[in-house]
Amino acid sequence: MSTATILARIEELAAISEDSDCLTRTFGSPAFIRASQLISGWMQEAGLETRIDNIGNVRGRLVSKNPSARTLVFGSHFDTVVNAGKFDGPLGVLMALDVVSSLDVELPFHIEVVAFSDEEGVRYHTTYLGSKVLSAAFDMTQLALQDAAGISLGDAIQMMGGCTDQLLHDKIDAADWLGYFEIHIEQGPVLYEKHIPVAIVTAIAGQQRSQLVFKGMAGHAGTVPMDMRQDALCCASECILIIEQWALQHCDRVVATVGTLQVVHGASNVIPGEVLCSLDLRSADIDMIREAHVELLAQLNAVCVKRKISFEWHVVQETAPVICDRELSGLLEKSIPSAEIVKLVSGAGHDAVAVSAIAPVCMLFVRCFKGISHHPLEDVEAADIEVALQVARTFIQQLIR
Amino acid sequence: MSTATILARIEELAAISEDSDCLTRTFGSPAFIRASQLISGWMQEAGLETRIDNIGNVRGRLVSKNPSARTLVFGSHFDTVVNAGKFDGPLGVLMALDVVSSLDVELPFHIEVVAFSDEEGVRYHTTYLGSKVLSAAFDMTQLALQDAAGISLGDAIQMMGGCTDQLLHDKIDAADWLGYFEIHIEQGPVLYEKHIPVAIVTAIAGQQRSQLVFKGMAGHAGTVPMDMRQDALCCASECILIIEQWALQHCDRVVATVGTLQVVHGASNVIPGEVLCSLDLRSADIDMIREAHVELLAQLNAVCVKRKISFEWHVVQETAPVICDRELSGLLEKSIPSAEIVKLVSGAGHDAVAVSAIAPVCMLFVRCFKGISHHPLEDVEAADIEVALQVARTFIQQLIR
Repeated sequence: MSTATILARIEELAAISEDSDCLTRTFGSPAFIRASQLISGWMQEAGLETRIDNIGNVRGRLVSKNPSARTLVFGSHFDTVVNAGKFDGPLGVLMALDVVSSLDVELPFHIEVVAFSDEEGVRYHTTYLGSKVLSAAFDMTQLALQDAAGISLGDAIQMMGGCTDQLLHDKIDAADWLGYFEIHIEQGPVLYEKHIPVAIVTAIAGQQRSQLVFKGMAGHAGTVPMDMRQDALCCASECILIIEQWALQHCDRVVATVGTLQVVHGASNVIPGEVLCSLDLRSADIDMIREAHVELLAQLNAVCVKRKISFEWHVVQETAPVICDRELSGLLEKSIPSAEIVKLVSGAGHDAVAVSAIAPVCMLFVRCFKGISHHPLEDVEAADIEVALQVARTFIQQLIR
Repeated sequence: MSTATILARIEELAAISEDSDCLTRTFGSPAFIRASQLISGWMQEAGLETRIDNIGNVRGRLVSKNPSARTLVFGSHFDTVVNAGKFDGPLGVLMALDVVSSLDVELPFHIEVVAFSDEEGVRYHTTYLGSKVLSAAFDMTQLALQDAAGISLGDAIQMMGGCTDQLLHDKIDAADWLGYFEIHIEQGPVLYEKHIPVAIVTAIAGQQRSQLVFKGMAGHAGTVPMDMRQDALCCASECILIIEQWALQHCDRVVATVGTLQVVHGASNVIPGEVLCSLDLRSADIDMIREAHVELLAQLNAVCVKRKISFEWHVVQETAPVICDRELSGLLEKSIPSAEIVKLVSGAGHDAVAVSAIAPVCMLFVRCFKGISHHPLEDVEAADIEVALQVARTFIQQLIR
């Protein structure tokens, strides 16, 4: 195998989509099942003990002669977002398979290459289904979750050949984990701007997802004078700028994004009476997220009082930051030949978040074109894959020694 | 008849809706047809020569003995917006019917009470279908327009019993018009704030409807640092505040509303790459609308250049202001007993806009509760209806003299 093979396989996987005009491969779809069979075939070819587990993870083991050895899990995911890029997930799976299949030494630990089944969480709005099963954290009550068509997660698992009452047996016990290693594209522009091919991930940012609700008074766009209005959209606009400004002032430590905005019963000739929007706050420092919440809440409240708009801030989800394992990351750092080592906080979530609850984790980021991700223009240069492969091989060899 | 009858009939009409949980009565719907039959029955009861014309206008004539007399049209509309109030339209129809049915004098001109079929334009996104037919301005190419279900306007007319090749015969010829008089709720808060029951309409504002398009760069909400973003929503927010500020500075002469905003492919974890929003500019002075366009375009362009966002301003529709007839409005002014005469520019469009192309028009506004309109809370006090009835009776009597 080689970089050329990895790139060819990325194209092969990219052609397996549930949408005819773009790449979309969500958990349990026919395209997803075909992709899992293709990956399973590649693992078998590479001589790994291969199986697809009950949550749809594709798993290939290279077994140590020591039966009581622990397991290093090395992988990434193969599900995608809607209208996805080709590299997010598959690159890490195929690089892991490449590194492991070229190993030709006695192993002091088992290595399991894993292609996780649900990192993006598009279908059931719940992330890390695959890695939660592997790390013994799967919540069986989630089997009742329904997708947009009303199909439960339990039924979806059975329809793709999984057995829901076997899910809990697909875990790797805490005592059996050596650690987790994942290669992933950066999905941001930092390496691209710095002209550096790879980076070590020091932490995965914690995240607070909220819904903001602005309620003013709807009215006729032609008949209510400007100075008698309670326009929920003008108020939301002022708040969005405050959020942006605050995050810019703290841009080395936090990102803040209003990604969705809905004018309820919006019409071009109606003054907006109600606006809903999302707010996504991320930082490697949980205190920073809390500080953002407190400070922004105060500033937004003040704007809403001034404008006679009622305001609600609902926290929908909060996840703590994950700190990557110091020892594994140190070994990874030693594996990078370059003089300049870039260390990044991952603003995106990864399967390492789920695994970190049970095992030490580390991650290597690969530069992507202009930082574009979750988009068909997502791209990675072959030379960078070559660099990352070399780092990963050295890292595994150091672990083996 | 009396105010009590008018209010009872408004309730009767409000119960005729195509939605079970709110009032919606759009052009050609079964609810619309039932309402037209009810109104037609009331006109017949009042002794008017009654018919429903081919565009669905309900028309009742009180005929002068002078066969060459001209016609005063007195009416309003009976279609509604989605989730409408009860008074917008029906109040004017029922008051016209009340005033005309209580006339007991020799008429020097014909009076035609008209309940127009499509003032709101919900179904075909084109306003004034009924009044355009009456004023000989109906555009036959519009018969090909399709509603959301793919039903053409031509088919809709035939399904409700109209005959499309007779549409042009439903007009009143230019030479036969004496004028047009309409009573309508204000749909704004000015009379409510001033504690005055009625107002004379001096003009109906001209309007420019536009679509604004902001294109930045989508990206992952967690991975793109704040200072590397091209966030289309933050840019749109800044522009919305500029529009609001400019209109506030000119609030005696213009209103500006961004009523819809759509984040294209918006998701809570994606930096907005593209935002579309509407802009509705209105003024009684067409030059003011053009000045707004020029000044705002310059300011918005500057913001978009600063933020590296591409920007497009598409004018979708532009209608000129309509000035109400000085003579008829003067007569209306003399019919108001109060010392303080309020004169307003109507920010909302009315059937008088279509009619004004062929005949002199005048309008009387009635105070509505808190200025709320296009909303179930729309309300009018019985005492104000009584005042408006008296003004209308005096106005008609003065015309007859």
